[in-house]
Amino acid sequence: MYRKSSSENSWMYSDSEKRVTNIFSKYHAQVSSMMQHQFPNNETKINTMLKYFLGWTDSTGQPTNKPISGKALRPILCVLACDAAGGNVEQVMPAAIPLELIHNFSLIHDDIQDKDELRHNRPTIWALWGNPKALIAGNNLRIIADITMNKLMETGVPTNKCLRVNSILTQACLEMIEGQYLDIKYEGETSLTKQLYLEMISKKTGALITAAINIGVILATENQNKLKAFNDFGKYLGAVFQITDDILGIWGKESKTGKPVGADIIRKKNSLPIILTNSNTTNKNQKIIENIYSKHTISNQDLNEILNIMEQSKTKERCLDLATTYCQKALSSIKNVSIPEESRKDIESIALFLTQRQH
Amino acid sequence: MYRKSSSENSWMYSDSEKRVTNIFSKYHAQVSSMMQHQFPNNETKINTMLKYFLGWTDSTGQPTNKPISGKALRPILCVLACDAAGGNVEQVMPAAIPLELIHNFSLIHDDIQDKDELRHNRPTIWALWGNPKALIAGNNLRIIADITMNKLMETGVPTNKCLRVNSILTQACLEMIEGQYLDIKYEGETSLTKQLYLEMISKKTGALITAAINIGVILATENQNKLKAFNDFGKYLGAVFQITDDILGIWGKESKTGKPVGADIIRKKNSLPIILTNSNTTNKNQKIIENIYSKHTISNQDLNEILNIMEQSKTKERCLDLATTYCQKALSSIKNVSIPEESRKDIESIALFLTQRQH
Repeated sequence: MYRKSSSENSWMYSDSEKRVTNIFSKYHAQVSSMMQHQFPNNETKINTMLKYFLGWTDSTGQPTNKPISGKALRPILCVLACDAAGGNVEQVMPAAIPLELIHNFSLIHDDIQDKDELRHNRPTIWALWGNPKALIAGNNLRIIADITMNKLMETGVPTNKCLRVNSILTQACLEMIEGQYLDIKYEGETSLTKQLYLEMISKKTGALITAAINIGVILATENQNKLKAFNDFGKYLGAVFQITDDILGIWGKESKTGKPVGADIIRKKNSLPIILTNSNTTNKNQKIIENIYSKHTISNQDLNEILNIMEQSKTKERCLDLATTYCQKALSSIKNVSIPEESRKDIESIALFLTQRQH
Repeated sequence: MYRKSSSENSWMYSDSEKRVTNIFSKYHAQVSSMMQHQFPNNETKINTMLKYFLGWTDSTGQPTNKPISGKALRPILCVLACDAAGGNVEQVMPAAIPLELIHNFSLIHDDIQDKDELRHNRPTIWALWGNPKALIAGNNLRIIADITMNKLMETGVPTNKCLRVNSILTQACLEMIEGQYLDIKYEGETSLTKQLYLEMISKKTGALITAAINIGVILATENQNKLKAFNDFGKYLGAVFQITDDILGIWGKESKTGKPVGADIIRKKNSLPIILTNSNTTNKNQKIIENIYSKHTISNQDLNEILNIMEQSKTKERCLDLATTYCQKALSSIKNVSIPEESRKDIESIALFLTQRQH
């Protein structure tokens, strides 16, 4: 299904790719620069750790030649949604930036939880400075997000709307944390259903992505139909994002993701590919996977065995199909909403990019 | 100095003690009940962990016969300050409760950082459920604090005042986190000065106590003199609190604090008694302390040696003097502010209690 639609609409994907490149080049630097402005000038050690993590400096505080940092996806989604709903893009920035800061706060704490020593091919904060300091650095970033959000008033947004935006973000953080909890709880559970998985990712990843969209829209309009439509769009898009993340966690190219093929299997993660494989393979194969996952470390032979079972079960195709289905649901949600043509194309392009992304 | 004033004013301390008992019995149950209302009814595992930590249930989620929990000092200070500044005590509650929730959030993360297995004689969250879940539980409590604070609007407080209160709390969290960072950074440093120590505790402990006072006052008045006076009062009171905490960390009675005599020495903490001992003893004794602190574990003999040096150097008296000095500075700060007589007595009593507390 995925490949078919991909080849049928190849002209569209090509146009869409250019559009995505333009969107990222237009907003990424702006977001990055505004993010840097949120850090106080006093060069405390906490700032050094955070600036390192955000890719602006090395671990000694020296600026990096080629800043490494995330895609700033959440602020960009917020800005695009605001634009699509007819809002003022300049005004939305102090509400868009905290989304990226909170996302990074959660990554810093995730790395501690998962004992991950590398992210974007660089040592994580805890790996360099130890758990206690990494924990504090994460909490500090969370506060910088709050302080940034408090600047929303200065852009002329009415105070009651500021409080609503604040409340959306708070609620999203709560759901994100619940999702992280479920993720940890499900570790090692071999009988996790697709339904439970989708509920978990709707919280862990979906909540902040949906909040990004909702915040952008709420700063643009009070129209209930638009708010509802974009909220649905956000929910489906959040699922798309995590599904492709899970695909990349197994079949992503190391040159693009910085992780070896099968990384999530090596880490015995209970992600979508494992769930879909288990529900589409023989009992014998299920047992093989279960046995491998019960081992202390997973050998190359084990990894290849699971990858073979996944190939037989067409797991990758099933995952891609699911991503495409959710992408279509996302786009259907906003089909009947009046959106300027260019904005709609931007949003559609980003949704397609998230469905097909390689990193 | 401390003992002298204590005996001179014994009639006053007695009256003051009764007053403090009345204040705690008046507000503690109210705060505890309102805190419990902030937890959603769905009995998630995160809630179980948090309710356990807050002393309302055991680790399986069963209500405890005799709920163990903190003094709820911060909300009570907030309420008393609001009352003293002429505000509506009922209105201040949704802003007072988050102070206690954030205090407990910081304790949950502190326990992870310090690898403390016990608090109030009960296993800590990480000790029962592991670091990753404890980290998430702490973050969750932080969010419940935010959600509670958002309810301030519903009490009729104008939105711009809600945002100011929110901003005070955010800033206090930032300072608290910076203070925690400094505390970790100073660990093992033998040449820490009293000045650096006082700066550190003004952030680590003082920020949230000062915020408690400021939030109470700001919800009562716009009078700049009162705001300034109470802000100073809060800063001095925060120092008093941490100084007595450090005193109890060494000379506290196990039956009251749940910790053995010399607990902070056994943990090689660089608290006020060590700092004051080092600046009031011979080079030889400084070397002895330094040698003991460089050991992997501290024996009973080591502990007694340091306690003897502290006795020779009158360290406990010096600490108590400093607490008394700051208590007097705190009370002087609000001397010229018009405060109803009963409210002033309440505030003075709490300040004296914090100077002399045994737990």
